[in-house]
Formats: sequence, C-alpha cells, structure tokens
Amino acid sequence: MMATKPKLHYPNGRGRMESVRWVLAAAGVEFDEDFLETKEQLQKLQDGNHLLFQQVPMVEIDGMKLVQTRSILHYIADKHHLFGKDLKERTLIDMYVEGTLDLLELIIMHPFLKPDDQQKEVVNMAQKAIIRYFPVFEKVLRGHGQRFLVGNQLSLADIILLQTILALEEKIPNILSAFPHLQEFTVKISNIPTIKKFLEPGSKRKPPPDDIYVRTVYNIFMP
Amino acid sequence: MMATKPKLHYPNGRGRMESVRWVLAAAGVEFDEDFLETKEQLQKLQDGNHLLFQQVPMVEIDGMKLVQTRSILHYIADKHHLFGKDLKERTLIDMYVEGTLDLLELIIMHPFLKPDDQQKEVVNMAQKAIIRYFPVFEKVLRGHGQRFLVGNQLSLADIILLQTILALEEKIPNILSAFPHLQEFTVKISNIPTIKKFLEPGSKRKPPPDDIYVRTVYNIFMP
Repeated sequence: MMATKPKLHYPNGRGRMESVRWVLAAAGVEFDEDFLETKEQLQKLQDGNHLLFQQVPMVEIDGMKLVQTRSILHYIADKHHLFGKDLKERTLIDMYVEGTLDLLELIIMHPFLKPDDQQKEVVNMAQKAIIRYFPVFEKVLRGHGQRFLVGNQLSLADIILLQTILALEEKIPNILSAFPHLQEFTVKISNIPTIKKFLEPGSKRKPPPDDIYVRTVYNIFMP
Repeated sequence: MMATKPKLHYPNGRGRMESVRWVLAAAGVEFDEDFLETKEQLQKLQDGNHLLFQQVPMVEIDGMKLVQTRSILHYIADKHHLFGKDLKERTLIDMYVEGTLDLLELIIMHPFLKPDDQQKEVVNMAQKAIIRYFPVFEKVLRGHGQRFLVGNQLSLADIILLQTILALEEKIPNILSAFPHLQEFTVKISNIPTIKKFLEPGSKRKPPPDDIYVRTVYNIFMP
C-alpha cells in the first residue's frame, strides 16, 4: 500500500509553513499543498473541525491533522531521524532550533510592518543575527570542525539555520561576511542532494513575500 | 553521589520561568534559584558565556546550561516521563502545550502593557481562552473521560494547562464557568501530591506580578 503524501494547508507563500516545507524536502518526503486563498476557505477548515486551535499551518500526515509550527517540525524531525541520537543531542538541537526560530520570526513578520518600520527592522534583524545568534553557531562549527551542528549528522537545527541564513541573505547579502564557518556550512548543507533539489527552480520552495502575498494574508486572516 | 539540584537563573517572579518551576515541582524535583536583580548580574552571566543566546531563563541541570523556555520544558518532560509513551502521544502533548503556551504568553506580557491597554487585553485573553483554547481541552476530557489530557497519565500538557488556568482565574475568576470538565480537571490535577505541595504557601511558586517585579524586569532588561 502506498503511503499518502502529507498535505499542507496554508497560503501560497512562506510564512510559518516554509520551515515545514524545508524539513520535508530535506527528509526527501514529497508533499501536496492546498493553498488558502480566501477567508471562506479558512472558515470551511474551521467549521469542519480540521484545525485544533482554529489556525494554520495545518499538515495532514499519517492520519493526523497537525497544527502549531513547532509541533509539526518536531514530528517530522522525530520520524525522519533529524533529532539526534540521544536526549543530550536532542536538547542541543532543540535549543539551536528555538534560537533560530526567534530570529526567523523577525523575518516572517517583516513584510507586515509599516513601510517606515521595515528598514529599521532590517537593521534590528542584522544586529540580532550578527551579535546574538550567528556567533553561537560559528563557534560550534569552529569548535568541532564537523559539517553539521550536532552529532556529525544532519538535524532539524541545520535545516532551520540554513533556511534562516538564506532568507536573511536575500535582505542583507553580506550578512555572513564575518562568519567563515557559517559560509562553509551554507555551501555544504545547500549541496546535500535533497536540499540542493529544493533550492533549484521548480521546487515547492516559495519566493520571498511580495505585495500579493501580504494582501492575501490580510484578506484571509484579518477579522 | 548525590545529584546536584537544578539551579534556575531568572528574576524573582513568574515570567517565562514559572512553567519551568511548575514542571520541576510536578516531577518532584527540588531546585535552587539564583534571582537576577540587576543589569550587572545579567551582564556577568553574559560575559561568562553562561547564556547561549545572551538571554534568561537559564537552568543549570545535569551538567548543562539550558536556555529557551520550550527547550528547558522539553528536557525536563523527557527526563521525567511527562511526554507520552510513543510519538503519537508525544505529538498530541506537544500540540496541546504549544497552544496553551500561546495563551500563557498573553498572560506573561500583560503586566508590561500600558495601563490603558491592560483592561482591553484581559478581554482579549478571556475571549481567546473561551473561544479558541478551552473548548479543545474540554472536548478532549469529555471525549475520553479520563483524568489527564493524553494517555491516561500526567504529562507536560496537563501541567502547563493547569498553570495557565490558575493564572487566568486570578484575573477572571469565572473563566471556567462554561467548562465543567476543565473545572474537574483543575481540582484533580491540583490534588496530585507534588502539585498540591507547590500550590501551598511557602513553595517556590511565585506570586502574581506586581509593580516591583515589573520595575525589576525593566531595570534588568531594558538597554
């Protein structure tokens, strides 16, 4: 019996679903997407009791309807052995992911800021990345000299960090200039075959948010 | 050899550390606390490389310095068998915890709002609780008729939900009036011996945030 592909429910853009797309792609899992385009489509999912807390992202997978970005990421990472070999590695991966998600959250919210605030926020993001987050990962990689952040094998932490670095580089091209090990990390993780394929044109990776995406999100989610 | 007690680093108040105190207490783990009172004490932790991302909460436990609230909670839950018996239960617990933490976050941020916004935000919290979150847990409990949310045994989800219900009841005493199963849940979980002890005077449970706590937090964390 062929397993059913996971089905992702979210607007046709990055937002809080893009990390899920990244992790599925990295794990080599094919998936389908059902793009929300209207408030009525969201209402239909809500009325049908398909959304535990009335919100997307929602992912149909293995007979479950998973919600809450982190819970979805954790499930996929557990299933596909992207969460370390023991509790100590798992906890390191979890901390690295949580820190990176705090940085990624700034990037996700950026297109919804007022135009005047957007440029200031790019400066804030750059500072947070350069002062708080990237030095941690640079030091980890320099310290153990391995390709991956934890346990010498690909984990959720590598995937979410690469996603975040590439999204930041779109706004601030030289963001890694002081971080040679993160530059090397970016090249090497980007060349893992499943990830390389996801980075090529025609994959399910979504483009940077544009005005149409922002309007669509407002139309669906604003009361 | 006697195991070292975990040591918690945070201001003397609830904030993002209170969930950690709850879970340790529920698991029957004694812990010490090092209360941050000044910017200089935070700076000293940062300068000594004790804070992975320069932030508290931080918990010294089992030779590690754990940061990021969720990562700390996950580690303690894993160690003390509060995360279900298999991946499916784990994922349910994770989703319930993530939803409840979204609600708890509103309560944590409430004392830092402007006075004019605080009353409006109580209304918002009450609506979120009554419309989005509590119906889910009421239905779960009604559906399986068991004492605990998942797998007929105490989990992280029960603990964080009870913490959140009690914190909300302090502001909105009748918040559970339409939820008989959650009322029963609150009584039963509160009577688990470790939790009962934590709810009694003299425990390490912190009181509701007051002006002194708010000023202390501003003094420590504002640039």
